[in-house]
Amino acid sequence: MIRLSLDVVGACGTRVPVGASDWHYLTQVMRRESGDRIEVLAEDGEVFEAVLVDGQHVEIRGKVANVRKPRRHITLYQALLKGDHFSEVVERATEAGISRFVPIVTERSIVRDVSPNKAARWRAIAKEASEQCQRPDVPGIEEMKRVSDLRAAAGSDAFVLDPRANDARPWLVPADHPLDIVIGPEGGFTPAELDLLSARGFLPLSLGERVYRAENAGAFAAVLFLQ
Amino acid sequence: MIRLSLDVVGACGTRVPVGASDWHYLTQVMRRESGDRIEVLAEDGEVFEAVLVDGQHVEIRGKVANVRKPRRHITLYQALLKGDHFSEVVERATEAGISRFVPIVTERSIVRDVSPNKAARWRAIAKEASEQCQRPDVPGIEEMKRVSDLRAAAGSDAFVLDPRANDARPWLVPADHPLDIVIGPEGGFTPAELDLLSARGFLPLSLGERVYRAENAGAFAAVLFLQ
Repeated sequence: MIRLSLDVVGACGTRVPVGASDWHYLTQVMRRESGDRIEVLAEDGEVFEAVLVDGQHVEIRGKVANVRKPRRHITLYQALLKGDHFSEVVERATEAGISRFVPIVTERSIVRDVSPNKAARWRAIAKEASEQCQRPDVPGIEEMKRVSDLRAAAGSDAFVLDPRANDARPWLVPADHPLDIVIGPEGGFTPAELDLLSARGFLPLSLGERVYRAENAGAFAAVLFLQ
Repeated sequence: MIRLSLDVVGACGTRVPVGASDWHYLTQVMRRESGDRIEVLAEDGEVFEAVLVDGQHVEIRGKVANVRKPRRHITLYQALLKGDHFSEVVERATEAGISRFVPIVTERSIVRDVSPNKAARWRAIAKEASEQCQRPDVPGIEEMKRVSDLRAAAGSDAFVLDPRANDARPWLVPADHPLDIVIGPEGGFTPAELDLLSARGFLPLSLGERVYRAENAGAFAAVLFLQ
């Protein structure tokens, strides 16, 4: 079933307008016609059945039960990466269950800012990936922060990934409180940054003996912590 | 440290020739010079320290301890995928710890054969991904098989991923015996194929409530089973 995110949904029978690019996707790419059923994700994470109606609208038919958000709310503080690699992080880690992305700039970061275009593109990728994997929610992409701005949230488990640190295995137990994960750039954090993050409540952990590329590390961490 | 795979290594002091494309990578892309240190992966999974020497050779200096293969030997029977998506599977799942790939053709497969060029490309991707993530071994890419050729190996845990099946959680316990995982194409297996695989010893399991894309499912499964 095709699933589409819409900001506004409303009660059964409501007709909701669909944006031009979503309408193109539904009718041209996926060849859906007036009367065909799709699913709609509301902004609050609820899922509805709907049918396409002429004039670029969908009509809400009812609520779909039994679709759940990821069990833990995970914030990924991910260092900016070269090329288009941050997009890959957003796509893969959304599918794996990250709930919120905070791009960070670090001492060894080569890319050091986020243009409005880039942020909009990451939001679109997060939305598409959520639809694709049938997540009822769309992860947020926050404003860029510096390492010195980070502080573990009260009540969260908070980790910074460091291949030289202790193994994460003892922490991989079913749980449902929030989690903050910090992942550095291709060249890693500097010792001073690791000291600072540790002082700010982020425990250094490794995901095992393998060195994961930055494009995969956030997704793999989410898979492990959400099991 | 740059790590290079070589078929033949030999004892301390041996000079080993390096292929033209690897030599280009070392000297042009990574700008390494005669006398610079690298690491070398032998075919049997051992890792050596070596230095570059003029005339496209490396000289072996000693063995590096403490580099381990993935704890479990996992065979991924992966349905062929459209476009270049099988390459993405090989790259990501090598990093995640799959030890052997068997491409399979299924009833709903759109791609139905593997050209020698494609197989060679997958082998090159597996080699590069192993070097990148510092795995001491390179996963094999086997000949294509049909679903009707598959049979769970004696002494292996054997699973077919099916989003509607029981949750894999009870099976995610530290273990070291081999594992066989079967993953279908974009459209999934047919009911008849699932019946056949089940009769052949592959237990249907889901990885949780999320629907993972075929490009990610094998890697995510390896991350979970290797923890």
